[in-house]
Amino acid sequence: MRITTLCYIERGGRFLMLNRDKKAVDENKGKWIGVGGHLEENESPEECVLREIREETGLTVADVRLRGIITFILPDWGNELTFLYTAKADTFDVSACSEGTLKWIPIEEIGALPLWEGDRVFLPLLQTRQDCFSLKLIYAPGGDLTGYALDGKECEA
Amino acid sequence: MRITTLCYIERGGRFLMLNRDKKAVDENKGKWIGVGGHLEENESPEECVLREIREETGLTVADVRLRGIITFILPDWGNELTFLYTAKADTFDVSACSEGTLKWIPIEEIGALPLWEGDRVFLPLLQTRQDCFSLKLIYAPGGDLTGYALDGKECEA
Repeated sequence: MRITTLCYIERGGRFLMLNRDKKAVDENKGKWIGVGGHLEENESPEECVLREIREETGLTVADVRLRGIITFILPDWGNELTFLYTAKADTFDVSACSEGTLKWIPIEEIGALPLWEGDRVFLPLLQTRQDCFSLKLIYAPGGDLTGYALDGKECEA
Repeated sequence: MRITTLCYIERGGRFLMLNRDKKAVDENKGKWIGVGGHLEENESPEECVLREIREETGLTVADVRLRGIITFILPDWGNELTFLYTAKADTFDVSACSEGTLKWIPIEEIGALPLWEGDRVFLPLLQTRQDCFSLKLIYAPGGDLTGYALDGKECEA
């Protein structure tokens, strides 16, 4: 299973969102997501997320917190295990990112962006949950979310 | 990277420990550890730990909590990413386990058992930490612990 990290960096009521508009082939093409990427050899999830933040944004962050463990069932792309983090930035100045366009978006406006359906399940939890949640997101071929389980409790999408 | 779960099940001030004394070839041979095992296809870590507890102990558990994420650097066996849990049992009656011998050990006596060196780093954290910690354990060929990083802070073993 692929192991990845994903981080929503906050400053002044905004999250740093990445519009995946630069790579020709990208499973996230056109979507807005947080920053992150794949775990490298001999790397812990925590080391991975700090490296990805540095590479993709140039930011130094504080208060990096593990907020959830997400198991993505993705028939089109292969399953993925994602460590979901939040962090805080002390500046809005970010470097250019080769993966897409970075933009600080007010948290309450993020729902209006093109997002993965599953992201609409976990993003609100970043506001309401303080503990580390466990989320399984079940996608069908084609990319529709068919169901999910939050802390083991199954829900319809 | 291999993905596994590991759970210390508690009842009455004891942890259910597994003495790995049954398999001819076992990287844990002779050691005492918690119960757990490898993530299967389409399984979340939470589903994995519940299945392993059921298969290895027959117990129904409550209050299953993710306590830490451990990145094992293991030159002899290949790296491993482990989700560390605790849970509570409502009985001491366990079924026989094909992986080894199960025994309820008073928590304060566990340090006297043959343990992996790294387990001596994380087991005390189950008593002192309530949040989910991040631990990287770096083993050398032969099985000696050479160092570790707790929540990103490097320490000598």
